[in-house]
Amino acid sequence: MATDTTRIVAVDTYDIRFPTSRELDGSDAMNPDPDYSAAYLVLRTSADGPEGHGFTFTIGRGNDVQVAAIQALREHVVGRSVAEVCADPASLHRDLVGDSQLRWLGPEKGVMHMAIGAVVNAVWDLAAKREGKPLWRLLADAEPEWLLSQVDFRYIADALSPDEALHLLRRGKEGSADRAAELLRRGYPAYTTSPGWLGYSDEKLTRLAHEAVADGFRQIKLKVGADLADDIRRCRVARAAIGPDIRMAIDANQRWNVAEAISWTNALAEFDPYWIEEPTSPDDVLGHATVRERVAPIRVATGEHVQNRIIFKQLLQAGAIDVLQLDAARVGGVNENLAILLLAAKYGVPVCPHAGGVGLCELVQHLSMFDYVALSGTTEDRVIEFVDHLHQHFVDPVVIDDGHYRAPTAPGFSAAMHRASIDTYRYPQGDFWVADLAQQQNTEVPA
Amino acid sequence: MATDTTRIVAVDTYDIRFPTSRELDGSDAMNPDPDYSAAYLVLRTSADGPEGHGFTFTIGRGNDVQVAAIQALREHVVGRSVAEVCADPASLHRDLVGDSQLRWLGPEKGVMHMAIGAVVNAVWDLAAKREGKPLWRLLADAEPEWLLSQVDFRYIADALSPDEALHLLRRGKEGSADRAAELLRRGYPAYTTSPGWLGYSDEKLTRLAHEAVADGFRQIKLKVGADLADDIRRCRVARAAIGPDIRMAIDANQRWNVAEAISWTNALAEFDPYWIEEPTSPDDVLGHATVRERVAPIRVATGEHVQNRIIFKQLLQAGAIDVLQLDAARVGGVNENLAILLLAAKYGVPVCPHAGGVGLCELVQHLSMFDYVALSGTTEDRVIEFVDHLHQHFVDPVVIDDGHYRAPTAPGFSAAMHRASIDTYRYPQGDFWVADLAQQQNTEVPA
Repeated sequence: MATDTTRIVAVDTYDIRFPTSRELDGSDAMNPDPDYSAAYLVLRTSADGPEGHGFTFTIGRGNDVQVAAIQALREHVVGRSVAEVCADPASLHRDLVGDSQLRWLGPEKGVMHMAIGAVVNAVWDLAAKREGKPLWRLLADAEPEWLLSQVDFRYIADALSPDEALHLLRRGKEGSADRAAELLRRGYPAYTTSPGWLGYSDEKLTRLAHEAVADGFRQIKLKVGADLADDIRRCRVARAAIGPDIRMAIDANQRWNVAEAISWTNALAEFDPYWIEEPTSPDDVLGHATVRERVAPIRVATGEHVQNRIIFKQLLQAGAIDVLQLDAARVGGVNENLAILLLAAKYGVPVCPHAGGVGLCELVQHLSMFDYVALSGTTEDRVIEFVDHLHQHFVDPVVIDDGHYRAPTAPGFSAAMHRASIDTYRYPQGDFWVADLAQQQNTEVPA
Repeated sequence: MATDTTRIVAVDTYDIRFPTSRELDGSDAMNPDPDYSAAYLVLRTSADGPEGHGFTFTIGRGNDVQVAAIQALREHVVGRSVAEVCADPASLHRDLVGDSQLRWLGPEKGVMHMAIGAVVNAVWDLAAKREGKPLWRLLADAEPEWLLSQVDFRYIADALSPDEALHLLRRGKEGSADRAAELLRRGYPAYTTSPGWLGYSDEKLTRLAHEAVADGFRQIKLKVGADLADDIRRCRVARAAIGPDIRMAIDANQRWNVAEAISWTNALAEFDPYWIEEPTSPDDVLGHATVRERVAPIRVATGEHVQNRIIFKQLLQAGAIDVLQLDAARVGGVNENLAILLLAAKYGVPVCPHAGGVGLCELVQHLSMFDYVALSGTTEDRVIEFVDHLHQHFVDPVVIDDGHYRAPTAPGFSAAMHRASIDTYRYPQGDFWVADLAQQQNTEVPA
């Protein structure tokens, strides 16, 4: 490849918003009216051949701020050698996280960090396409030493040394070919949140819970936290629908203070919840540790809003969580998620990723599948969230089969959206939003 | 005021950047070339009379992202009754922090949260101007019950209950008139970072350290963390210049892992550093606790990058810090800083605010002065950072007198910049930057 002079020539950005708030799908105690959105980017190169696709998921307002943050990273990306950055995505990750001026806006958290994750993920998408492999396979085939080189140990070395990480990666190689074959045969276990959104009637909850079990899911999830009496009723309805053997997780979406998290969760204990998710602020390591101690044997889960590997490190150090819910588009991309998967493996805590939203299922399956094949080596007590939302907009959508994610085989990170979806849902100039605005203006009541 | 129909009619925003990277002022181990900047806003109202001014401090790139984030908050601000929002800034603070869609971009951290802080602070500036008082005086004169109503106890009630907070505020009232008089007479103690930037020669360090002592400062601060041999030499030079009785803090700007923080700090112990500031990631509560245990009696300080009250709460709960360095423009404005001051008072940890940058000295003095007059009631072991940077751009700049901040008497939060400074340093259209670009183009070497 010494003659490969291909360069990244542009970072095209798109503010894409889907009008999901018109339905109650996706509503929870903290997020009553999300418009599922993506700050989406395409890395264009100087040659024919694959582009890199990546995005940040948001829930509507502020998606433009997220796009502006991605644009602020352009100067680090445009002009890079495609061969070099794909051979070593950590080089870009390091430059983005290390930009001393942009770092002030975090560091490594919130809008700027999510933008970094989107760009880094797009590079991994490009790298996997160039290798002709789905991302999970690229990672699982990689040498432990190379994977190690992709991890930033700054601020986590007190919990996980590079030597320990290398040992874990080498151990993960043992039997990995067999597990890859098993993965391709059986897929990776999923659970579904579709029955449990707030705002559904008991009848709809019952019907969807029955369907989930019939579809092969062994776990469902209910949103809780708005009203305790409602939650008791809904948990009773759901447990009656699924019977005692299907796991039922509950999710409070950060609604509570520590004391409230403990009392509310225990008030639902009779329905045998498998885990309580996001009982309080994702920043509150010590709060989660207290909650966990006081609601056992109900497990404590969090992660979709955990900002970076440093908070995850502490959640593990403090024994604050039973289940680690990484998110593919919240932290600094695949590189940081490798660090998080390694930390989870070190502490023996199962990873059950957050998904749903726009394209999060598509991304995160690759991380869990790599973890199964070549790191933790198991799917025991591990499930990937599944929500049946918006997959039709993706070129390589997830496929669920008998309660399992089928392993993707197309090259890349499954991040690319259809051009028609982009054109329709770009905000505010896409066809949908133009028509929507015209309709709103026609139906406005004169003052 | 029943007839006061004044409304906020506009949020004007400005991307203001000063070319400070051309000097070595402000350089440290993590931030080698900052261009001190402000994402600045003006709340305009429908009546003649005061405007509200606020800003986020950044160090250059990304200031545009910060401006975009402030603009994303406009719909919550424009149209509000000025009398109502000034009577209860918490109402706006709550709406901004609680925007369920924007919340996804944090929650309560990074770009979006700093934007919220800028807008909330601008409302407090407006409120203080309307009362004809400097902000510290408005806060110190307020009733404890009203101050309590300005605090969001979500996610901190396990460490500080509203009842405890009310008790602290009532206790703070005792003797407050005497302390206000003392404050107006003597000012509030400052320390100076001016001698200690990386990149200064030993001669300049010595000269500036002598000047600091001559100017009445009882504490200076040195940047460390780039090179241990250099740090040992610079600490020796500084200690020799100031003698044994002046306090010398050191500041690593997050440069280290936990183990490195411990060994490096202890390697400088012979120079009797008063505190080690930002030894590691601001997110690492448990890491700071470990560092503190292992470097005692050297104190551990952090806060300028601590994202919100929830991390501060844990730093206090874990006994991880000796000194709490709040920042006026990092968290969600005065409302959240009231929560942080109350937490510090509860745990008995002195607050020594971060300042410097653009206008941070101007803002933060009000918070410390309120704390002295009507909350902690003491200035013992408390100092506000002072850096002699960019004050000339402010309408009501800080005044340092014999090593003390003189208490401001002009109404407001001291946040307003001169119109001429805005016009000159707006990026990229301000006069300075236009001329700078033209000069760069003239001096470009042909390829």
